[in-house]
Amino acid sequence: MKKKDSLVEKERNRQDLGFGTKMTDRQTRLITGAGQFNVKRVGQSFEAWLNLYNRLITVRWSGFFVLVLCVYLVLNLIFASLYYLIGMEHLAGVDMTNTHSQFWDAFFFSAQSLTTVGYGRIAPVGFAASFVAGIEALSGLMMFAIITGLLYGRFSRPNPRILFSRNAIIAPYLDTNAFMFRMVNEKSNQIINMSVSLVFSKVEEKNGVRSRQYYGLTLERSKVNFFPTNWTIVHAITEDSPLYGETAESLAESDAEFMIATEGIDDTFADAVHKRHSYFNDELVWGAKFKPMLENDGEERYILDLRKIHDFDLVSLNP
Amino acid sequence: MKKKDSLVEKERNRQDLGFGTKMTDRQTRLITGAGQFNVKRVGQSFEAWLNLYNRLITVRWSGFFVLVLCVYLVLNLIFASLYYLIGMEHLAGVDMTNTHSQFWDAFFFSAQSLTTVGYGRIAPVGFAASFVAGIEALSGLMMFAIITGLLYGRFSRPNPRILFSRNAIIAPYLDTNAFMFRMVNEKSNQIINMSVSLVFSKVEEKNGVRSRQYYGLTLERSKVNFFPTNWTIVHAITEDSPLYGETAESLAESDAEFMIATEGIDDTFADAVHKRHSYFNDELVWGAKFKPMLENDGEERYILDLRKIHDFDLVSLNP
Amino acid sequence: MKKKDSLVEKERNRQDLGFGTKMTDRQTRLITGAGQFNVKRVGQSFEAWLNLYNRLITVRWSGFFVLVLCVYLVLNLIFASLYYLIGMEHLAGVDMTNTHSQFWDAFFFSAQSLTTVGYGRIAPVGFAASFVAGIEALSGLMMFAIITGLLYGRFSRPNPRILFSRNAIIAPYLDTNAFMFRMVNEKSNQIINMSVSLVFSKVEEKNGVRSRQYYGLTLERSKVNFFPTNWTIVHAITEDSPLYGETAESLAESDAEFMIATEGIDDTFADAVHKRHSYFNDELVWGAKFKPMLENDGEERYILDLRKIHDFDLVSLNP
Amino acid sequence: MKKKDSLVEKERNRQDLGFGTKMTDRQTRLITGAGQFNVKRVGQSFEAWLNLYNRLITVRWSGFFVLVLCVYLVLNLIFASLYYLIGMEHLAGVDMTNTHSQFWDAFFFSAQSLTTVGYGRIAPVGFAASFVAGIEALSGLMMFAIITGLLYGRFSRPNPRILFSRNAIIAPYLDTNAFMFRMVNEKSNQIINMSVSLVFSKVEEKNGVRSRQYYGLTLERSKVNFFPTNWTIVHAITEDSPLYGETAESLAESDAEFMIATEGIDDTFADAVHKRHSYFNDELVWGAKFKPMLENDGEERYILDLRKIHDFDLVSLNP
Repeated sequence: MKKKDSLVEKERNRQDLGFGTKMTDRQTRLITGAGQFNVKRVGQSFEAWLNLYNRLITVRWSGFFVLVLCVYLVLNLIFASLYYLIGMEHLAGVDMTNTHSQFWDAFFFSAQSLTTVGYGRIAPVGFAASFVAGIEALSGLMMFAIITGLLYGRFSRPNPRILFSRNAIIAPYLDTNAFMFRMVNEKSNQIINMSVSLVFSKVEEKNGVRSRQYYGLTLERSKVNFFPTNWTIVHAITEDSPLYGETAESLAESDAEFMIATEGIDDTFADAVHKRHSYFNDELVWGAKFKPMLENDGEERYILDLRKIHDFDLVSLNP
Repeated sequence: MKKKDSLVEKERNRQDLGFGTKMTDRQTRLITGAGQFNVKRVGQSFEAWLNLYNRLITVRWSGFFVLVLCVYLVLNLIFASLYYLIGMEHLAGVDMTNTHSQFWDAFFFSAQSLTTVGYGRIAPVGFAASFVAGIEALSGLMMFAIITGLLYGRFSRPNPRILFSRNAIIAPYLDTNAFMFRMVNEKSNQIINMSVSLVFSKVEEKNGVRSRQYYGLTLERSKVNFFPTNWTIVHAITEDSPLYGETAESLAESDAEFMIATEGIDDTFADAVHKRHSYFNDELVWGAKFKPMLENDGEERYILDLRKIHDFDLVSLNP
Repeated sequence: MKKKDSLVEKERNRQDLGFGTKMTDRQTRLITGAGQFNVKRVGQSFEAWLNLYNRLITVRWSGFFVLVLCVYLVLNLIFASLYYLIGMEHLAGVDMTNTHSQFWDAFFFSAQSLTTVGYGRIAPVGFAASFVAGIEALSGLMMFAIITGLLYGRFSRPNPRILFSRNAIIAPYLDTNAFMFRMVNEKSNQIINMSVSLVFSKVEEKNGVRSRQYYGLTLERSKVNFFPTNWTIVHAITEDSPLYGETAESLAESDAEFMIATEGIDDTFADAVHKRHSYFNDELVWGAKFKPMLENDGEERYILDLRKIHDFDLVSLNP
Repeated sequence: MKKKDSLVEKERNRQDLGFGTKMTDRQTRLITGAGQFNVKRVGQSFEAWLNLYNRLITVRWSGFFVLVLCVYLVLNLIFASLYYLIGMEHLAGVDMTNTHSQFWDAFFFSAQSLTTVGYGRIAPVGFAASFVAGIEALSGLMMFAIITGLLYGRFSRPNPRILFSRNAIIAPYLDTNAFMFRMVNEKSNQIINMSVSLVFSKVEEKNGVRSRQYYGLTLERSKVNFFPTNWTIVHAITEDSPLYGETAESLAESDAEFMIATEGIDDTFADAVHKRHSYFNDELVWGAKFKPMLENDGEERYILDLRKIHDFDLVSLNP
C-alpha cells in the first residue's frame, strides 16, 4: 500500500501547466509570440467554430468596418430587389420614365429606410411596399443595435499593451547568475497588483520515452503593487534551481521553453489583465546585462524610454 | 461540556455542498445534464418569478427575435388604433376615398413613426395626431434603447462551451485504479486558471434514517494554468479514498452521484467562467481507458480532435 | 516596552466592522432592514451629493420613465420657443393663418427633430432655423445614447433577491442550543460559492464609558458551493461562544444587534453578489424551530416553497 | 554556497512597490496628489500613446461634448463639400437662384442625413448624391453607436470619491505614539470589504550610493467589512516600527514618502475600487489629534460631517 501511495503522491506533485507531457516535437513552441497556444482544434460544432461574437470583437478595426459596409450593401441589395419585384409603381416619387435608374431608386430608397433617414422624396404606397419598408426599418434598427453592442464590446475589452524584451538573458546577479527578462506597460494608464509566474519546460527522455516536464522557477519578486516603470524579472540560478548546470546546448537539445503568465489590474476600469509570453531556448542570450531605461530629466519627473526595452550589453558571467 | 463540543465539531466538519442531507429520493439526480439544480421554486413573488431581464438574456436567439417582432407588431396595432380613433383626416397624405386601406395607412404611418424613419408621405396634422406621433417616436427610441441593452447583455454574457466526456470511467492508473472523466474547451478562445472540484455524494442509512452525505475527492491535479487541450481529471482510488471498496452495485444501491464544479477565466474579456456537471452512477464505466485526442500533424502544430472526447477502450482494472 | 506592545496588540485584535466603537445610542440599529447603513452624510460636495449616474440607476422604473418623459417635454419646449423666436415663417409647412396653432406646430416640429423622425411636412428653411434643427437632432441622438447607457446600466446591475427569515431564532441544536436564521434565493437563477459571515455587536460599559464591541460568531458552515435550496445558518452556543449566558433581557439591555454579510456569484453573468442583513435583539425568538421548506413532489423533482421562509414552531430549549 | 543563498534570500525579502531603488531625486514625489505615478513615458508607439478609448473615457465631460460637436461639424463640412462638388442640382428642394445660400443648404442637408432626421424638404436625386447620402447616413449611425458606447463606458467606469485628510499626523496613541491619517467615502453609495496598505519609503545612503528603500507599516486594522463612516488608519510607532526614532528632520533629510493603496468593492455594481494616495514628509504634522466627524442628531440616525475631514487639534506627544 505504501508503494501505491508513493506513486500517486509523486504524480500529484509533478508540475503541469495544462499542456500535458506528450508535446515533445522537436523545435515546436508551446506558446507562440502573441501569447497564443500552439494547438489547432478539429471537429468543433459549427457554432463553437464560428464563435461569432468573439470573432467580431477580436477582428481588426479595418476588417470590422469593411464587414459593416458589406452587410449594409447586401441588405440594401436584398431589399431593393424586393421593392423591384413588388413593382416600382408602389414607390411614390420614382421617375417611371427612366427604366435605367429605377433599380437604383429602389436601392437608395432601401438605404434611406434601413438607416431610418427616410427623406420621403421616394415613399412606399400600398400594402406590400409599406410592409417591406416597415420590416426594413426594424431590421435597420436591430442591425445598429447589434453594431452598438459590438462596438462597446470592442471598446471595453481589456487590451493591455505589455512589452516584453525580445530576449531573455543569463546575467551576473549578486554572486551567482540569473535568468532575466524585462517587461513594461507601453500605455500610460496604470496597472496595479501585477504578478508574474515563470515556468521552465523541457523534454526529458526516460527509458526511451520522451516526455515534456515542467518546473516552476522561483522569482526574486513575483508581485509588485504598482507597475509604473520597467520591471526586470529575476530567477537566481542557485544550486536548487532547475536551471543549475544547464548550458545553451543542453537547453537546445531538450527543446527548452520558458513560459510566462502575468496578471494585473488595469486601474481605469478595474479590469483584470492577463498576458502570456514565452521565450524559446534560441531567444536566450548567455552573458548579458540590460541597459537602464529610466532616466532623470533634471526636473521633477522621471523619464522612461520604451525604445530601450530590448537593449542589453554583453558581459561575462559569474563562474 | 466535552461531549457538546465534539458533536458540534463533528457537524462542522461534515461536508455539504448546499443541498443538505434530505435529498434522498431514489434515482433522482441533484444536478441535471445541463448543470442545473433539480429543485423547483414555488411561492415566489411575481417579480422574482418573472425575472424579466434574466429571461430575455437567456432565451434562445430565435425566441428573442420573434419576441421583438411581436412587440413591434403589437405596438403598431395599438398606435394605429389610436390614429384611427383620432380620425384619419388628421393624417395628411392618406387617400380618404379608399376606406378599405385607411387602417393600413394608419398602421404603416405608425411603423414609420416608431422606427423614426418618418418618410412624411403620411404626416400628422393637428394637436391630437401630432401628440400621439410624438409619444410614439419616443416609445420607439426607448424600445430600441432597451433592445440595444438586451443585445449587449446577450453578447457579453459569459458563454463557455466546455465539453465533458459522456461517461466517467474507472481506469487502471499507476499501480491502482482511478475515477476519471475528461473535458475540453470546444471554442478556440483561451481559458486560463482552470480549476476543478469533484464531490462524491451517496445516500447512507443510519438507525433507519436515510441521509445524503458528501465527500470531496482528492484530485491528481485540481488546477491548470492553461487549458489548451483536453484535460483528464483523475481521482486515484487509494485506501483513503471514499470510493475505496465501492462497486457498480453498491453505488447504484446508494444513489451515488459525482458532482463537478469548474471555474476559470475566459481570456478574451477576463470573464469568470463557471460550469457544473454531474455523473450519475449509471454513467460510470468500470474498466475503461480514454482514447487520445491530441495528434501531431507532422508539421509545427498540434491537432486536437474534439470528436473523440467520448471515446474509450475497455480494459481490465488493476486488482 | 512590554506594556506598550501588549496594549497595541490588544487593540489590534479587537474586532471592528468599520462602524467604530462610538455608536452607542439606545435602540438605534446600525444596519436597517434594507441592508443600508444608518449614517447620514452632510457637507458633501455638490457632485458627490448628486451622484447622478448612481441615482438614475437605482431610482425605481416608474420614476425613471417619468423623468425621461419630463426631459423630453422640457427639451421640446425649449427648442419650440427657439423656433418661435426665430419666426414661424422659417418653418415651411406651417399654417401661417392660424396663429393659435403655430406654437404647437413648432412644438411638434421640435419633437419630430429631437426623435429624428423628421416627417418633413414641417421643415426648416433659412440658416437660423436649420441651424437650431441641426443642433436639436444632435441633442436628441445624444439624449438617446445616454438613455441607452442608463438602461443597460439598470439591466446589468447585480440585483439579487435573497430572502431572509423575518426572525432569527434560538433553537435546540444537537445537545446544546444555537442561534439560527435562514435565507433563500428567491429567483430561479443560480447562486454559487455563497458565503456568510455573522457578527454579534453589543454596547458594553467599562469605567462609565459606553462603547460598542463586535464579536465574530463561528458558524457550523460558512460557505456552500451551491445555493439551490434554503440555507439555515447555525451558530452553536457552546461555552466559548460570545452568546453563552446571554438572555433576551441582557441582549435588550446591551442594544445587541446581529449583523450578516453574504457574498456569492450569480451564475448567469458571473456577477459578484453582496447582501447585508441584520437582526436587532427584538427580532430574536427564543425557543423555536424552523418548519421545513423543501418537499417532495413524489416525482423526480424537489419542491421549495418560499412562502414558508418565515415559519417556525415554538419548542423548548436544551438546558 | 551558503553565501550565495543568503544574498539571494536577502534580496528576495527586500520590499519593493514596483518603483525600484533608483528613484532618489531630492524633493521628488513618487505618487502625486491625484494618485498618479510621477513617471513620464517616451518612445511609445503611436497607438499606445494615443490610447484613444482611454482618453475619451477619462477626458472631462465638457471636453467630451466639445469633441462630439467638433466631429459633428467637421463631418458635415466634409459631406457638404462633397454634395457641393457633385452639384447642387442633384439636391431637390434647393433654391438654385440664391447662390449665396446653396452651400448652407448642402450643409444642413448633410446634418439632416447624418442625424437621420431626413425631413426631405431637400432630398438627393441621381446616383452620386444618393450614394453619398447613403454613406453619410451609415456614418452617422456608426458615429452615434460609438458615442453610445463611449457614454456607457464613461458612466460605468468605477469612480469612487474617497477623501483623504490633507495631513497625516503623529498622534499620541495608547501609551505610545502613532502615524495616522483618515479617509471617508464622500458618496452615499456603500463601499464594503475596504482594505488599506501603507508603505514607508525613504532614501538611504550606503557606501556612497543613494538607494530608495521601502518598508511596510503594520496597521492597527488593515481591513473593514463596511466603510460607512470615517476610518482613521493607525500605525503604532512601537520599537519594531521602521518609524521608531525618526524625526521631522530625519524624514525630510531622507526624502521620506508614505504611500497608500486602498481596495474595496462598490456595492451598487459590485465594482472593484482602487485608490492610491501619498503623504510627502512635509505633509506630516507632529503632535496632533483628529477632531471627531461623527455626531448624533438626537434621533435615530448618525450624522457624518465631511467638512471636518481635515481638522485636527495640536496636542503633545507621549514621550
